[in-house]
Amino acid sequence: MTDRIHNFGAGPGVLPEPVLRQAQQDIWNIAVSRIGILEHSHRGKLFERVIAEADEEARRLADIPDRYKILFIQGGASQQFAMVPMNLLLPGRTADFLVTGLWAQKALKEAQKYGKTHVAVSGDSCKFTRIPDVADIRYSENPVYVHLTTNNTVYGTEWKSEPPVPAGVPLVADTSSDMFSRPIDVTQYGLIYAGAQKNLGPSGLAMVIIREDLAELGLPSLATMLQYRTYVKERSLYNTPPTFAIYMVGQVLKWIRASGGLGAMAERNTAKARLLYDFLDRSELFRGTVDVGSRSLMNVCFRTSSSELDAKFVAEAAKAGLDGLKGHRSAGGMRASLYNACPRASVEALVAFMKEFERTNPRPPA
Amino acid sequence: MTDRIHNFGAGPGVLPEPVLRQAQQDIWNIAVSRIGILEHSHRGKLFERVIAEADEEARRLADIPDRYKILFIQGGASQQFAMVPMNLLLPGRTADFLVTGLWAQKALKEAQKYGKTHVAVSGDSCKFTRIPDVADIRYSENPVYVHLTTNNTVYGTEWKSEPPVPAGVPLVADTSSDMFSRPIDVTQYGLIYAGAQKNLGPSGLAMVIIREDLAELGLPSLATMLQYRTYVKERSLYNTPPTFAIYMVGQVLKWIRASGGLGAMAERNTAKARLLYDFLDRSELFRGTVDVGSRSLMNVCFRTSSSELDAKFVAEAAKAGLDGLKGHRSAGGMRASLYNACPRASVEALVAFMKEFERTNPRPPA
Repeated sequence: MTDRIHNFGAGPGVLPEPVLRQAQQDIWNIAVSRIGILEHSHRGKLFERVIAEADEEARRLADIPDRYKILFIQGGASQQFAMVPMNLLLPGRTADFLVTGLWAQKALKEAQKYGKTHVAVSGDSCKFTRIPDVADIRYSENPVYVHLTTNNTVYGTEWKSEPPVPAGVPLVADTSSDMFSRPIDVTQYGLIYAGAQKNLGPSGLAMVIIREDLAELGLPSLATMLQYRTYVKERSLYNTPPTFAIYMVGQVLKWIRASGGLGAMAERNTAKARLLYDFLDRSELFRGTVDVGSRSLMNVCFRTSSSELDAKFVAEAAKAGLDGLKGHRSAGGMRASLYNACPRASVEALVAFMKEFERTNPRPPA
Repeated sequence: MTDRIHNFGAGPGVLPEPVLRQAQQDIWNIAVSRIGILEHSHRGKLFERVIAEADEEARRLADIPDRYKILFIQGGASQQFAMVPMNLLLPGRTADFLVTGLWAQKALKEAQKYGKTHVAVSGDSCKFTRIPDVADIRYSENPVYVHLTTNNTVYGTEWKSEPPVPAGVPLVADTSSDMFSRPIDVTQYGLIYAGAQKNLGPSGLAMVIIREDLAELGLPSLATMLQYRTYVKERSLYNTPPTFAIYMVGQVLKWIRASGGLGAMAERNTAKARLLYDFLDRSELFRGTVDVGSRSLMNVCFRTSSSELDAKFVAEAAKAGLDGLKGHRSAGGMRASLYNACPRASVEALVAFMKEFERTNPRPPA
């Protein structure tokens, strides 16, 4: 037993307990420096090591080649929705979007401010309950890049593999909710970005992995803070970065490595999700809300027979120490986020609670 | 005695120890929620209270009227260098700059990307060693705003009061290194911004105080994350904010209030700075580098007789547990930052060390 409860929040999400324990020490006095991590200069030797380690851990975990740069940028994925087209959507060109949910729509909307866009496929017609067939994708003639959202936090779907793109066209991915939850071949992408607050660390930081040639495309007339080249050139230290968030990401990545790496994470995450999906498939009361083939391992969305019973479930679960189960305001129902740091024991506790809830709240006869 | 050393770093700077002690607890389990502060949803009740408290504490400390909105924005002051002109430098208008140092120059340079600018006065000719006379300021005919940097972290100067501006023209201030170190009359300003990592909290957050009419000036074609109105409308919760940094700012502001408020801070900070400046004025070896009338209470810049001896001093001080005394790379020499959370005991220890250093390293005869 711990004095902490089960946290299924979609983000900021649960963090690994050993990382929190270490952070408790390090905000007072890190590495015998007798200064806390929050109070170290970003230009000092200690923080230089902290940021270098975060970079090295990420490279090692995902086998990231040198020609890709890892950038730590503030503003989360929402700022990347704008920074990507500001830098990559060249005049006269078109950016193609695979629209599979709310966040993909937001990324599209920001890009429309900066140039021509084309929706190559959209899951809108099926209310984003499944990932579209790749056969239905219609790219524009010569897209400057193709943008997708690998996992859809709101609706609970995910791309199982990268969709085909026209030869030589960079794939740009928002991986906010599945980054480093499974192996990723970064060479399939031109640019990958992820808000840290789900699988990687606290909020207030986006990790961006960019092929170095793409970092040079933005016009120098862009704000210095909004050009990728600034972060490449200054190794994310042009201005004072969010030092604590970068420290935490480094610690979480170390924890992932110590836990066996991305392959081990994928196995665990698959097993955790299967526990819950298997129960949903057997349940008389609860049901998953998305197509079986599109099910996300990270965000499991489900419902009971009525929104009243959904609300009752969420409230009773919270009382029982199972927190963060309310679905996104635009989707309703329930959502259990099972990020890397969510222990299997939390999923087991959730399934046990759902079984008991079903017993005491039987589905009314149709 | 504590297991922590004296930290004179210019930012991220030293934080109040009681705030660090509370944070150690709260990152494991905050307010008996059995979830750590880093892991709470930004849409949940607990964080709603955290952000509301940070807002209320700031309003109370500086008596901020309702028509000013407090925004929490990522990207630090450097992103504000661009956001201010993006939103406020209207087509055909001119923004005036009072250039008193490196950061003012950077703010000017970003503004030049977005419209017409005018340098109303510059301390460039005296290498920024003093704040210009207000009599030397020459405003353009009808500036849309006037920008100043209230305290110059690199050179160690500060405006002692607001310079006069043409009637009705909003004053825009970068107060990164003196915000809430002394009373401030926000009604003298149209917009105030400050990176948090000096007097307010950890890095990764800028606090922006904006007169509400000015938040409506930005074109809706700007990126959503770069419009002030987005933060006003969504109370800084349009996307996932840097929740921990906001929590820390709230805690630091509470600590300031418990310590007597901004008036008490100003008294303490004045006394701390006087200790050091008085010693510099008496020393045979050390000397302050800026005009007496322009001396900053926050960043005290000084030198010995040679850069070799400066380096020796910095190295020996660090060994003696006095850290962060190296001057900014563009200014050289030494700099002691005496932010709110720097205890008087640290300044006393510094002066004692300087006396001893002077005794063992006497100034060579001229």
